[in-house]
This record gives sequence, structure tokens and C-alpha cells, in this order.
Amino acid sequence: MPDQAPTIANWRVETISGGITAPAGFRAAGVSCGIKASGLDVALIVPDTTASAAGLFTTNRAQAAPVVLSHRHLVQSGGQTQAIVVNSGCANACTGANGVEVARATAELVARRLRCAPEHVLVASTGVIGVALDLQKIAKGISAALEALRADGGHDAALAIMTTDLSPKETAARVHTSQGAFHVGGMAKGAGMIEPMMATMLGFVTCDARVAPSLLRQALAAVTAETFNAITVDGECSTNDCVLALASGQSGVDIDAESYPALLEGLRAVCRHLAVEIVRGGEGATKLVTIHVTGAGDFADARCAARTIANAPLVKTAIHGGDPNWGRLIAAAGRSGVPFNLERASVVIGPVVLFQNGQPFDEAAPEAADYLRGQEVTINVDLGTGGPHQATMWTCDLSAEYVRINAEYRT
Amino acid sequence: MPDQAPTIANWRVETISGGITAPAGFRAAGVSCGIKASGLDVALIVPDTTASAAGLFTTNRAQAAPVVLSHRHLVQSGGQTQAIVVNSGCANACTGANGVEVARATAELVARRLRCAPEHVLVASTGVIGVALDLQKIAKGISAALEALRADGGHDAALAIMTTDLSPKETAARVHTSQGAFHVGGMAKGAGMIEPMMATMLGFVTCDARVAPSLLRQALAAVTAETFNAITVDGECSTNDCVLALASGQSGVDIDAESYPALLEGLRAVCRHLAVEIVRGGEGATKLVTIHVTGAGDFADARCAARTIANAPLVKTAIHGGDPNWGRLIAAAGRSGVPFNLERASVVIGPVVLFQNGQPFDEAAPEAADYLRGQEVTINVDLGTGGPHQATMWTCDLSAEYVRINAEYRT
Repeated sequence: MPDQAPTIANWRVETISGGITAPAGFRAAGVSCGIKASGLDVALIVPDTTASAAGLFTTNRAQAAPVVLSHRHLVQSGGQTQAIVVNSGCANACTGANGVEVARATAELVARRLRCAPEHVLVASTGVIGVALDLQKIAKGISAALEALRADGGHDAALAIMTTDLSPKETAARVHTSQGAFHVGGMAKGAGMIEPMMATMLGFVTCDARVAPSLLRQALAAVTAETFNAITVDGECSTNDCVLALASGQSGVDIDAESYPALLEGLRAVCRHLAVEIVRGGEGATKLVTIHVTGAGDFADARCAARTIANAPLVKTAIHGGDPNWGRLIAAAGRSGVPFNLERASVVIGPVVLFQNGQPFDEAAPEAADYLRGQEVTINVDLGTGGPHQATMWTCDLSAEYVRINAEYRT
Repeated sequence: MPDQAPTIANWRVETISGGITAPAGFRAAGVSCGIKASGLDVALIVPDTTASAAGLFTTNRAQAAPVVLSHRHLVQSGGQTQAIVVNSGCANACTGANGVEVARATAELVARRLRCAPEHVLVASTGVIGVALDLQKIAKGISAALEALRADGGHDAALAIMTTDLSPKETAARVHTSQGAFHVGGMAKGAGMIEPMMATMLGFVTCDARVAPSLLRQALAAVTAETFNAITVDGECSTNDCVLALASGQSGVDIDAESYPALLEGLRAVCRHLAVEIVRGGEGATKLVTIHVTGAGDFADARCAARTIANAPLVKTAIHGGDPNWGRLIAAAGRSGVPFNLERASVVIGPVVLFQNGQPFDEAAPEAADYLRGQEVTINVDLGTGGPHQATMWTCDLSAEYVRINAEYRT
């Protein structure tokens, strides 16, 4: 029963510096090959020996060529990966047969240089939709990246996957277990877009525990559900979104039923940090907002209400303006389609109760407005149905800057 | 088979001036009683004799007191109504037991003055959520409105239901049939909100055909699905939304299986005009956008894709900026959850094909950008599944002004 945590936790998670090369057995690089006008634009992650791999891909039906290819490669290889190559500046999405061919050729180039089968190479892209990816440029980038691979190259890789993120996003954790310690590292790029048509979330997680691909996938899916899939900037799901995980096994720690909760906790620490940083760096965002929904009959209802609130433009603009507008929170929860009992519902902004048991407490609005001046805001909405389930979503406020960023005509 | 139009249309619809008092047998008034700081704030619609009535109400589970009461009164009266009273400036939503009592007392006051049963009175409110509606003020307003009732009072009523709409929304139509002519009139208020916590769509339609309540409800539901329910400003569904229809019968035209399509067409002309005007007057809107989705396996899929596109912030900001960003349209259609075939999908902005059969036509972008400079924009997205079904949604662009309007702290 790997999903059940043991009653006594015999492991401990410690945040450490670094990113995807913090775990043993990985080299990485970030180089420039001219896909973007300036800056690093190709990242390469190479485990010392073939790693267990798992991937989760966008549910968008307009999947980009690299998404389709990486998904196929993971299936064909049975979750064995020798390299991940990522480019920024071009999403290779909606590019037809040519786009598929360029993605395939990219994987083949890397495979030839690393003397592995093409299906052991995963590819990911982020950037402009509908523009062909230049195979010559990417080939030049791959050569340079292979030369530049280093055991401390994680930071360069994190820089190379940025489009217009305000800062690179990387973190790592050490997990102490009875078998010894293992490490988890990660990097991500988010929706800190200025150039229009960029909107992709990419996450890459490495680990030096020894874990079978199927178990790694199970852990990645569980953790992604409550981290990367629990954030929203604008409710837009990209053609290129993906989260990829690799496990090198070099720590010597084996992941089995007993140590699985430790793997979950390590992945969770890394993925939650990256997910929250993506929201904090959301386009035009000035506040990080935690929406916590309680009193639901099941988790899906709680998540649905939390997601509706987190994406509601009237909620996001009110928070931007520091307005403790509990009526908009009630209206969003009410229209989310899940069971909702107005007579028992409540809204609490920070420490301030504004609505409870069908009654408003508007006299508390100034106190809540004070609280909303902060850059980190927590909002609790109880659906009033008496159910024991809850869910959390992270979102940001909606500012005029978001509109400005996304309304600018591509130049 | 009232849903089947006859092969030969023996009726004709003509747009005429006026609003809810254009049909024979209705008086209306709009007066001021101090609920709003200034301007008219109580509207009254009174048919000369009890009218057939039908209503459609918000699906939001946080229904306001007047919504709950009017729904109940329509059921209790079997669709017979002697008055509709509407106030602006206070939504009477999330106001607990007191709110229910004030709504009930309002209906009773009108009923006593008109010597009818309370269930023959419908009430509707729009304005701030969570603030008690002042019964003394509304009583004063009802007295004044009863004095002011006039056969040409429709315009005053249209003014009285505005919150911060930029202009009143009213229209009327004459429907010529083999039995003679009948008339349909309507007024609405939309989401032209400046004062936060106002977000309600109210629609009122009158008709002088003779039509049974059940048939009126069927026609209202059919027409609302493709008009009021096919618009979006920001995807927010209010606690107070409702559409109410009354039929006086005074034209002498009977609505039966043969003339039912004429009723549908008359209602459609009036409701479509009002719905589009609500979008045109949406908060911060600078463009009216028609989203037309084709190539769907059924209507629900077409509508779902159209709605997702119409609410996508990246689509709405691109249109605001005049950016023919077809990639965002593809991404929105792809994430809507309905069957979508990227290899056969297409995006056409105005007359300009930008994406077809998996291939972009970016060289046409400047021509599409020119087209997007206009104030009325039509976008066609084909889902590429070869299905015969289609749907239309009307939306507006997302501007920094929308954020400014909704981020301002309530004063």
C-alpha cells in the first residue's frame, strides 16, 4: 500500500540549495544557439546511466509535437531515459508535419551523440506557437550543450528554459531515511510571459533514489495533483505543458512500500516550491493567493470550487484592489456547480470572518482590507455542506499589467 | 410539434421603437426612492389583466432572496402574474432571513395595492450583495411607481433597472402573422458595472400574443439558450440573474402549433438585441466579439468550445490589443475538453484564414490585424472533427479598464 504513510515517519525532508543537479548522477547544461534573440535557449539533462523516467503531459487536445513525441518515447522505452533536451523561444506547436519531424530529428541527434536509442531521449519546447523550430539551430545548441555538461550545470539549465519568467525557478531537498539520504531537485518555467503566445508550464524533477518507472510515475502523478495542477495564473492550459521526472538511483536508497512516503514528501517539497514560485511570478501578479476550500462532500468538489474561485476575474481583481469582497467569493463558489449551502457557508479572509451562517459581518471589512495589503494572502471558503473534504489552489491577482502584457501586438 | 417551423414562413418580424410597453396591455413606471444615491431605482411592470408569465433563474447555488421568491410565486400561481417589481442599487443577496422577509413583504405590498394574491407578484433585485434592502424605501418606491404607471412608461422602467450600465437597453418587435400582428418588447440590464459587487443580468420581455404559460416558458427557454445564455463578459454568473416574460394576449393573436415559430422569432429578435447590447456595454469593453465554432459532433460540444474561447483571458487580451493570435484560439479550443483534431482544425479571423489543416498562414497576420481594429469582430474556429454542429457566443475584449473598474475598493 504505497499510498499509506507509515504511522511513525522514519524520514525527514530538508531543503538544500541547488536544482536538478543536486541529486547524484546528473549532469546538465544551458547554452545559447540563437532560437531566442538573446539569452540561453537550450537545456540538456543527462543522467550518468539510464534513469527511470516518468512524465505527465498537457490535457490540451492541441498537443505540441514535443509533447506527443516524449509521451511516445516514455511508452516505447518503458520509462528509461538517457537525456532530456529542452528549448525555449519556440514551442514547436501547431507546426504540422514539419514540427513532428524536427522534434523527432532533435531526439535522434542527441541519441546518436550519446549512443542510445532515440526513444531514450525526451524533448520539451516552450515559446511562440505556430513558428517552425529551426533544426540547424537546435543541432548547434545540442553540440554546445553536450560540451558544456557539468555536474553543477543545473542553474544554467534553469536559465535556459526561461521565456520571460522574471527569475529562474529551482530548488532541491535532501530526504533522510533509515536507508540513508537521497535527494530531489527540480526546475520549472512558468507563465511569466511578456512575449505573447508563450504560456507554458514546464517542470523537471531529478532524484537519486532507486525507483522503478511505474512507482516514479505514481509518485509524480500524486504530487503533481496537489502542486503543479493546483496552481492557476489565468486558467489557460498550454499546448506544451509537461512535468518530467528522472531517478538515477545513485544515492543507493531504494524506494519500496516503506520508503515510498519519503519519496512523496521529497517530491512534494520540490514541486510545491516550484509551483508556488510559478504563481508568484505570474504575469502582472502582485500577490500570491492561497484559496482554501473546506466543507465539501469529496475532494473533487472542493477542488472544483477552489479552482472556480481561483480563476474568477471578479475575485482576482478585488484582491488586486485590496477589496475584501466576500460577495464575489460566495458568488464564485455558488456558480461552481458543486453542492453549496448558503445558510451554512462561510468566508474568512486571513484571520477575519466576513460571512458565516448566512450572515455578513461587514463591520470587519476594514480589518480584512488591511490584511489584503500584504503580498501573501490566504482565503478560506467553507461550502456549508458539512462535508469533511478540502482542497487548496494557489493563484495570483489580476492586474492591468496582465492585460498590458498580453494585449501587446507581437512584434 | 411547436419546435418545428413550418416549411413556408407565414410570418415576418419587424423591429420597432420602444421597449416593454410596446406590446398592448402593459403599463410601466420607473421612479426614485433613495436606494441608489441618485437616479431611478424602482421599476414596475403591470399588465392590464393577469398575464401569462414565465421565468428563468440563475443556476448559481447562492440564489438571492428575490430569485427564490419569484421562482416560488411562478410555481404557486401556475404562471399567472399581475406585476413585476424591480429595484436597482441593492441585490438583496446573502442577506439571510431578513432578506427573504423583505422580498416577501415587497410582493405583499404590491399585491395589496393591486388587489391580487402575493404569488401573482414577481420581484427582482440588482446591486450590492450582502446589504439589507430597506423595506421603507421600497414601500415608498412602490407607491410612487403605482401613481406613475403609464402605457408608455417602458423607457423609465429601463432606466430604473440600470446599475452602472452606460445606457438603458430596450427594444421591441412587431410580428406579422396570418392572424394579424403581435408585439414583443424587452429591456435588460447588464454587466456595465462600476460599483463593485454588481454583476447581475436581468431581462424582462413582454408580449401581447395570447400564449399559455407552459408554451411561453418553452419559447423563453429556447430563445434564452441562444441569446442571454450565449453571452459572456467575464464568465461570472450572478446570484440574481433572471429573465422574466409576460404575455397579455391583447393583440388577439393566439399562439398555437402553427404560430409558435412566429413567437420564437419575435422573442429571438428582442432577446438577441438585448443580449448583444449587454456584451457591447460590458465592463471596459471596446469590442463586440462573435465567436462561431463549427465542426462539432453535437451542439453541446460546439457551445462548450465557444464558451471556453469566449472566456479565455489570453484570447480576450489579444483581441483587445488587435493581435490576430490564432495560437491562443487553438489552445483554448484544445483545452475545452471537447473532441478536437489539430490536423483538420481551422481559425478564421474576419475574412482571413490564419490556420488550416494543421498549417499556419502567418503571412496573413497583418491583414487580420487590420480587421481587428474594428469595433465588431467575428472569429470562426472549426474543431476539425468533421461534425455538422455549430454554436455562437458573444463576448467582449478584456481591457485594463475592466481591471480598474473591478479592483477599486468599495467606498
